[in-house]
Amino acid sequence: MYRPGPRNLITDVPGFTVGHATDERVQSGVTVLLCAKDWPAGVDVRGGGPGTRETEALAPENLIGRAHAVVLAGGSVFGLAAADGVAAALSAQGIGLTLRPGSPAIPIVPAAVLHDLGNGGDKAWGLEPPYRALGASALRAAAADFALGSVGAGRGAMAGLMKGGIGSASIDLGGGLIAGAMVAVNSVGSALMPDGITYWAWPFELDGEFGGAKPPGAQTDMGNPEPGGSRLPGSGNPGANTTLGVVACSAALTTAECRRVAMMAQDGIARAVRPAHSLLDGDTVFALAGCAVAIDDGARRALQVSRIGSAAADCMARAIARAVYRSRSPQGIPPHG
Amino acid sequence: MYRPGPRNLITDVPGFTVGHATDERVQSGVTVLLCAKDWPAGVDVRGGGPGTRETEALAPENLIGRAHAVVLAGGSVFGLAAADGVAAALSAQGIGLTLRPGSPAIPIVPAAVLHDLGNGGDKAWGLEPPYRALGASALRAAAADFALGSVGAGRGAMAGLMKGGIGSASIDLGGGLIAGAMVAVNSVGSALMPDGITYWAWPFELDGEFGGAKPPGAQTDMGNPEPGGSRLPGSGNPGANTTLGVVACSAALTTAECRRVAMMAQDGIARAVRPAHSLLDGDTVFALAGCAVAIDDGARRALQVSRIGSAAADCMARAIARAVYRSRSPQGIPPHG
Repeated sequence: MYRPGPRNLITDVPGFTVGHATDERVQSGVTVLLCAKDWPAGVDVRGGGPGTRETEALAPENLIGRAHAVVLAGGSVFGLAAADGVAAALSAQGIGLTLRPGSPAIPIVPAAVLHDLGNGGDKAWGLEPPYRALGASALRAAAADFALGSVGAGRGAMAGLMKGGIGSASIDLGGGLIAGAMVAVNSVGSALMPDGITYWAWPFELDGEFGGAKPPGAQTDMGNPEPGGSRLPGSGNPGANTTLGVVACSAALTTAECRRVAMMAQDGIARAVRPAHSLLDGDTVFALAGCAVAIDDGARRALQVSRIGSAAADCMARAIARAVYRSRSPQGIPPHG
Repeated sequence: MYRPGPRNLITDVPGFTVGHATDERVQSGVTVLLCAKDWPAGVDVRGGGPGTRETEALAPENLIGRAHAVVLAGGSVFGLAAADGVAAALSAQGIGLTLRPGSPAIPIVPAAVLHDLGNGGDKAWGLEPPYRALGASALRAAAADFALGSVGAGRGAMAGLMKGGIGSASIDLGGGLIAGAMVAVNSVGSALMPDGITYWAWPFELDGEFGGAKPPGAQTDMGNPEPGGSRLPGSGNPGANTTLGVVACSAALTTAECRRVAMMAQDGIARAVRPAHSLLDGDTVFALAGCAVAIDDGARRALQVSRIGSAAADCMARAIARAVYRSRSPQGIPPHG
């Protein structure tokens, strides 16, 4: 039987830590995934209104294809500055690519942002948005344990008409192969079925990690194509909603394989949120390879990569449900338990 | 309450007909969607092993962005010839783009193929594969009613470890807005949950269209990340599996909007098949706009397009379940009822 890793967090994958910085006055924040080294990384953007940075550096046909950290941030376009704070701090520690001795280390810090500008927090920052400092602060907080729910990049987020937030989940596939996901859920779509009780992701739940609610009875009409609980009928702000995800695995994958895993992990969004990938979402998934475990180099490699992608999709669906579940619970509960 | 259109087929969308040609000896076939005129069309390719034709002509930044017909075919690369048969027949009828008076009409016939070469049928065609003739034959058969199940492009298809086939479904969104989907299911992944009874697509079912089976009880462990019933553990043939879909709507959409609808319809595959979009799949979705109904041109347009995309995703999930459901039932049952 398959079980989550010990923390049921993306940090169960060796070589990754996560830190949050939250500004309660602004009702926004930043979440940083820090890599122990520059791991192979890919990205897949599927939303109609994305806000991103350094995604082209992760294209398989380009030079770099690796990342030192990944930043998720609130603040819409202003949140992109969080990656500045992270990149400067990492470089000051000597972390980054060194193209020439004596010149600054060049950290590759891909980032994606979500829109939380209209959530009632104090956004009167004028020329000094808080995100650069929040990025540096989140980086300092990076650790194996981190909170879920209404924190960090998920502090100001909404999942359809409910509170969104940060979620994470992991799975131990055996033989040292571990996959995990982390997500900031700010979707147009709802994470709940039209009954308002059952998570779309229910079939993927492990160990009651998001409450154990089972699907409704036969008399409930689930066929209504109007996405119940979503903001689709009401919202008029393209680019105002986003599910930002990161998946990681312990396998040694190439950049192109990371991209395939990111593509498959988007299916976890599709299975946990309805609708997803609309013009009004900025859905983006990063995938990183911790390179602790070698996988087959022969004919079975495509199978192995696909199996990892399928597990990553499951983790993504679970992480989304956990984000909403933890954001509905009181603050301060332990991140796992 | 939302209901399927009168046929619960993609042909409920005005301006489209569908024909099959099936070769029982070869255990393969071709399915053609014929457009009443050159409708705006987009495509989204998400599988790792696609086999396609004319997809670049449907890129939003390119010139054409329209299609006269769409072909789905078995036969792997040999099936691409089905579009030759369709293009020649359409041109002979004067259907196609006319760039210069007197020169042949140029029909745009995008196509995608699935792999059914190993299914035991007679594939000893040498230099004369049957697909060109099957394409022309399927075109001649195009009508508002068409069969579901093990016919046409779905004749040799497998859905995971079960028989695959052709499925279709539609939804009437009111105000003349109708969406529909058609699919040939030959996926690595299974359309059934690990219990082997419940369709993944069950929440989207309308009117018992694929048997009305409800999800399993709480004691069934749905959390197993190994895709039960799928061919993922066993198959070693990248590109050997594919879910090929077409969605259509009655709205007047641009080519770029068609592409967004195709992207969102891929979520229907994600919700109905697990795993999906693996390296071993060639998953491809075409989207066409029948242009019978104008939609808002202002700020609400993005909402409308997203709503159509969400409905198309639902139809795609239902069409996939119907494909497998109808392929399990005896041949010859009426396509709707």
